[in-house]
Amino acid sequence: MAEREFIARRLAPIATSLAARGLADDAAVWTPPLGRDLVFTHDVLAAGVHYLPDDPPGDVAWKLLAVNLSDLAAMAATPAGVLLGLAGPDDAAWRDAFTAGLARALDHFGVALWGGDTVGGLAGHVLGLTAIGWVEPGKALGRAGAQPGDGLWVSGTIGDAGLGLAVAQGRAPFDKQLLNRFRRPMPRLALGQALGGIATAGMDVSDGLLIDAQRLAAASGVGLAINLDAVPLGVAATGLEDRLARVTAGDDYELLFTAPAGVDVAALAGRTPVTRIGAVVAGAGLSLNHDGKPLALPDRLGWEHG
Amino acid sequence: MAEREFIARRLAPIATSLAARGLADDAAVWTPPLGRDLVFTHDVLAAGVHYLPDDPPGDVAWKLLAVNLSDLAAMAATPAGVLLGLAGPDDAAWRDAFTAGLARALDHFGVALWGGDTVGGLAGHVLGLTAIGWVEPGKALGRAGAQPGDGLWVSGTIGDAGLGLAVAQGRAPFDKQLLNRFRRPMPRLALGQALGGIATAGMDVSDGLLIDAQRLAAASGVGLAINLDAVPLGVAATGLEDRLARVTAGDDYELLFTAPAGVDVAALAGRTPVTRIGAVVAGAGLSLNHDGKPLALPDRLGWEHG
Repeated sequence: MAEREFIARRLAPIATSLAARGLADDAAVWTPPLGRDLVFTHDVLAAGVHYLPDDPPGDVAWKLLAVNLSDLAAMAATPAGVLLGLAGPDDAAWRDAFTAGLARALDHFGVALWGGDTVGGLAGHVLGLTAIGWVEPGKALGRAGAQPGDGLWVSGTIGDAGLGLAVAQGRAPFDKQLLNRFRRPMPRLALGQALGGIATAGMDVSDGLLIDAQRLAAASGVGLAINLDAVPLGVAATGLEDRLARVTAGDDYELLFTAPAGVDVAALAGRTPVTRIGAVVAGAGLSLNHDGKPLALPDRLGWEHG
Repeated sequence: MAEREFIARRLAPIATSLAARGLADDAAVWTPPLGRDLVFTHDVLAAGVHYLPDDPPGDVAWKLLAVNLSDLAAMAATPAGVLLGLAGPDDAAWRDAFTAGLARALDHFGVALWGGDTVGGLAGHVLGLTAIGWVEPGKALGRAGAQPGDGLWVSGTIGDAGLGLAVAQGRAPFDKQLLNRFRRPMPRLALGQALGGIATAGMDVSDGLLIDAQRLAAASGVGLAINLDAVPLGVAATGLEDRLARVTAGDDYELLFTAPAGVDVAALAGRTPVTRIGAVVAGAGLSLNHDGKPLALPDRLGWEHG
C-alpha cells in the first residue's frame, strides 16, 4: 500500500476531529482553549532501543502515546491532540496492528490524532509522536522549584516495568501484569493535573527513579534524601541488590514530585496511590538511606539513552 | 557523547526561547497569541528516501525545517516554534554539522526550537520535525474550496529541484543554484500569509506539480485545466519530454493555489513571483494544454512516497 493510500485508509478514519481536516490538508488547524498555556512534547521510540522489535505492534502504539502523555502529565497538562511520525519497513500487517492499537489508545485517553507523516522502505521502525496539551497559566510543573523541607513523593509502584522487560526478554517467567507495566505504561494524567500549581517540582520516571531524582535535584539546586525502604514496589524485593535494581530499572512512567510539608498530598491524589519516599534537603545530589543507615549510591543510577 | 549531553551541549544553546525552558523539563510551555487558530504539521525526512545520505548535514537540517514551514505556508500560517526528533547513527561530526545548520535555519526564519528527542545507535537517519504556527480564525487555506472560474496559480519556478537532484546524483554538471533548489528549498511564507482568506484553495508542491494539482482538484471536487507552456521554469526546457519531466519532478516547495478572477494576485504576492498557469473548471481531474492543443496526461504525475 502506498503511503498516501495507507494514510487515507488507515489513519484518516482515526483522525475524526475537526482539527485534523480529514488528513486531507498540509497541516492541522486547532482553536486553543481561551486563556490557557499550551504544552508540547515530542518523544521518539526506536525498535531495539526503546522496545523489543517483537513486541506486539498495538502495544508499541500504546507505549508511544503513553510516554508522550506521561511528559504532559509531568507538566500538569491536559492532553488535546497528537501528530504521528511513522517510519519503518513496508510491513502492512505490522502497520495495521499498530494503527488499530493507536486508535484504541487515543480513544482510551480521549486524545485526537491531528496529523503526521509516514515513510516506508526503511530497515527498522522509528516512531515519533508530538503531544499537545494545555494548562492554566502559571500552573505548569517543572523540575526546578523543589525547596528544602519539601517532601519527596512518587506515584504507584517502581521497578515493575523492569521486571516486565525481563519477562519480555525470556529472562523471567511469564507474568501478564508485569509485562503490561513494560509494554503498556499508564501516564498519571489525573495526578499531574491535580499537582499543577501545588507541587513545587515534578517529572516522570522514565530512565530510573534514582537517575531521574538526580536530575530533579540538579534542576532545583537542592539535595534529595531518599529512604530506599520507603520506595513502593509492586513485587517484594529479595534483598538490597534487587531493591537497587528496581529503582534503577526505568520505564515506570510514574510521577516523582516534591510538595510543601503542609500539603495533604494523599487527598490531592485522590484515587492515585502516592508514597512519600524522602525529603528535599539543602545541598546537591542524592543521599540514600537503607535500614536506618546511609547507603552509598550504586555506580549505575539508570538509563542514559535519552 | 550521550544523548543527554548532546542535548545539553548542542541543542539547549539553540533553544533560547522562554517556551523551551532550556530543554530542562519534560515539555515546552507556550502562551499562544490571543484570538488565533493554531496550525500543526509534522514531516519526516529519511536518509535515502527524501535526501541523499551524503548531502551536507547542514543542508539536511535546512530542508527538514523548510519542508515543514512550507506546509505552514500552504495553510497561510505564521510559524512560531518547532520540536525535533533526531534519530540515527552515533555520528558526532554529522550531528554537530546538522545542529549548526539547524541553528542557522531557525535564525533565518525567526522560528524557535521548543523541544524534542534524540536517539542514537541506529543504522540510518530518520528526522522528524513538528512545526507550530498561527493564523487568523477562518483564514487558514486548504485544498478544498477551488471554484470553477477561479484562476490556477503557482509561485516561483517549477522543476529546478529535480534538476538539482540530478546534479547531486552526478547525472548533470555542477550547478550551485540548482543544487540549492534541491537541498535548501525556500518556503513561501510571505505569500502564504498574503493568500489567507483570499485564495480559495492552496497547497505546496512537494511531489510534483501535476500530482499535487490532481490532489487539489480531487479535494475541491473540480477539474483543473493547466496550460503546460505557461508553467514557469528556471531553466528553459529542451522539448516536451523535458517540460513534462519538470512538472513531475517534485521538491519544489512552491505554492499552488486558486483565486477568484477579480483578485489582483500579482499585487497581493508583492515581491514573490506568481504565474497564472490555468483555470479551475467544472468536472474532475487534470487536463493539459500544449501548443494550443490538448495533451494526454503522462503515466507518471509525480512521487507517490508520501
